[in-house]
Amino acid sequence: VLPRVELALSGETFAAVYRISGSEEEAHARALDICVEQTVECPSDLLPEGDVREQLVGRIASFRELDAHHFEAVIHYAVEVTGWELPQLLNVAFGNSSMKAGIRLQRLELSPSLLSVFKGPRFGREGLRTLLRVPQRPLLCTALKPLGLPAAELANLAYQFALGGIDVVKDDHGLADQPFARYEERVQQCAAAVLRANRETGGRSIYAANLVVPADQLVERALFARRAGVGGLMVSPGLVGWDAMRQLAEDDRIAQPILSHPALQGSFVTHPDGGISHYALFGQIARLAGADAAIYPNYGGRFPFSEEDCRAIVEGTAVRMGPIKPIFPVPGGGMSLERLPDMLDFYGREVILLIGGDLHRHGPDLVATCRRFRCLVEDGGRGRSR
Amino acid sequence: VLPRVELALSGETFAAVYRISGSEEEAHARALDICVEQTVECPSDLLPEGDVREQLVGRIASFRELDAHHFEAVIHYAVEVTGWELPQLLNVAFGNSSMKAGIRLQRLELSPSLLSVFKGPRFGREGLRTLLRVPQRPLLCTALKPLGLPAAELANLAYQFALGGIDVVKDDHGLADQPFARYEERVQQCAAAVLRANRETGGRSIYAANLVVPADQLVERALFARRAGVGGLMVSPGLVGWDAMRQLAEDDRIAQPILSHPALQGSFVTHPDGGISHYALFGQIARLAGADAAIYPNYGGRFPFSEEDCRAIVEGTAVRMGPIKPIFPVPGGGMSLERLPDMLDFYGREVILLIGGDLHRHGPDLVATCRRFRCLVEDGGRGRSR
Repeated sequence: VLPRVELALSGETFAAVYRISGSEEEAHARALDICVEQTVECPSDLLPEGDVREQLVGRIASFRELDAHHFEAVIHYAVEVTGWELPQLLNVAFGNSSMKAGIRLQRLELSPSLLSVFKGPRFGREGLRTLLRVPQRPLLCTALKPLGLPAAELANLAYQFALGGIDVVKDDHGLADQPFARYEERVQQCAAAVLRANRETGGRSIYAANLVVPADQLVERALFARRAGVGGLMVSPGLVGWDAMRQLAEDDRIAQPILSHPALQGSFVTHPDGGISHYALFGQIARLAGADAAIYPNYGGRFPFSEEDCRAIVEGTAVRMGPIKPIFPVPGGGMSLERLPDMLDFYGREVILLIGGDLHRHGPDLVATCRRFRCLVEDGGRGRSR
Repeated sequence: VLPRVELALSGETFAAVYRISGSEEEAHARALDICVEQTVECPSDLLPEGDVREQLVGRIASFRELDAHHFEAVIHYAVEVTGWELPQLLNVAFGNSSMKAGIRLQRLELSPSLLSVFKGPRFGREGLRTLLRVPQRPLLCTALKPLGLPAAELANLAYQFALGGIDVVKDDHGLADQPFARYEERVQQCAAAVLRANRETGGRSIYAANLVVPADQLVERALFARRAGVGGLMVSPGLVGWDAMRQLAEDDRIAQPILSHPALQGSFVTHPDGGISHYALFGQIARLAGADAAIYPNYGGRFPFSEEDCRAIVEGTAVRMGPIKPIFPVPGGGMSLERLPDMLDFYGREVILLIGGDLHRHGPDLVATCRRFRCLVEDGGRGRSR
């Protein structure tokens, strides 16, 4: 009944790579199903003749066995289906398939027009190193906590951290706009405290303000932070949306480095037979969405991420994606000074080392503890490289 | 080192209920961990004396066995931690715990101040029935597809669907802003087509425009849709963020019914030992975020949702949540006219029945097929109620 459709498509395709569970026959059927579900979402026999049927439906470019129960399918999609917008790119890659069993989005292989449309991180690894004047060593990061401290106390902590030489002093991800430390008050005081410490040390520490924020106040609060003199922002795309982070990254009036935080994203990665891989989620997608550094729980801390998961994230933060810059992995989540030698071994120098609560465990002089953190990294990094 | 903190908290708490895997000892340890991880995110011995330690850390209000390997913990949080903002409420309920093993957010029990701050759906079940002038029977819904049709063809389909008496004619969730049918052209033509059909039938069908859209164009495109004469919007909170949907729902300039679509949310529900329950995700949270109707895959279709999952969603759409209105469940995903008797049995009349591709399977006269759909629902619903 539907008329034949001719679409004048460019022929450009991008690929999404899936890990599919099941027997070979089941997995292949699932791959064919993905081709339809992620595009026309309509049984093949009902499709109009012509380009919809022949070019808009995804195509299996390769299919291979990973092990007896898992197969990898590379599926090509016409780039036009994305409309060159991030929410729709994610939709094509995994929208409805997220609801099916046994399908994991492993990685994206983007095509030239997508790689030219998405700006990715504004700073990336190099830009952040230039901004912080740290050309070589791993960067140091800590978190302002706990929730419940008044703004002045948080600012006092920020001051000591910066005085001790922590490069990135960020809010804990639960600091939103609560009555015990309202957003504006907190951001103003913490930004000022870090700038004061910098004046005293000649350093270039930055304060990164957390933006867990209603959609209609996102830009406004980011602009406030900029005016207050912050040196970065932290955004949880699981809470505010990936594209909201991209919007902040691309806004020239804001122009701040962005740390992404994994809150509420765990359900994507925790079950290996579904969801999105660590590589794609915290690496590729974080970059597409404008993060300059991606925070995630390190192995051996208080979250169940494995060494393999963390290695995959590191790869995803740096894999070649056209002009989209590599970003920093930021392993955290229960890290300690004791873990530093191991972390330096594992990550080499292209990393931001996030240690939170443990900095309070080494005596009352927080500044001295931070200096020790810095020395351990400078010493530990010597002679190491990856 | 940190000074004692007094917070003048109200004492009001809300509850999040978790299903935790493991032995009783493991599960209880996980529950204690949730109390800290979701609030102060700081080891207890490092917390300042006073209210942070005594009132901001979550508290286990009850802990009981569900079966030999699963326990239910009800955890109370000081309402102030949410800042009365939706992204932070979700953050407190499940942010970091999403990354841990064996924790599923089962449901929320909100407190008076939260229930007065969140407006929820603008229309809800009753409002939508009034708007569509359908006081009793189940509502009918279909989707414009496939992706790739030009705007004029989509509008032609929309016209026939409305002529045949479908109440809600929605875009397929993959219709974004693609070159073969640009957003503005599509929305204008489809809205006009449905209005034209209404003039001819005297009916009140609505066209719901899909908004898979960059964050910085969300409001603009919604306002365009409103001006074009749509009767509703479809939003995928997994793609654009829950709070973006809330923003649209609360904006008086837009004031349209909202269907939520589950794209990219499957990873939250598919593994029962993690994620968020169907009840909370497609019921409670969809309502908090302003949906008037929540689309999800029905059991027995092309997605692996079970009858139990669907029953839980129905409960979540209607459970008492202060002044926040009940919303419609919208089961879809491979439904057919043949399934109608079963669906009417299962759902009763408080449902929107979504049948997509199957309407094209019953001969070339689409209008007649839609009329048959409507008759089957009117007849089938007779004498049934829940």
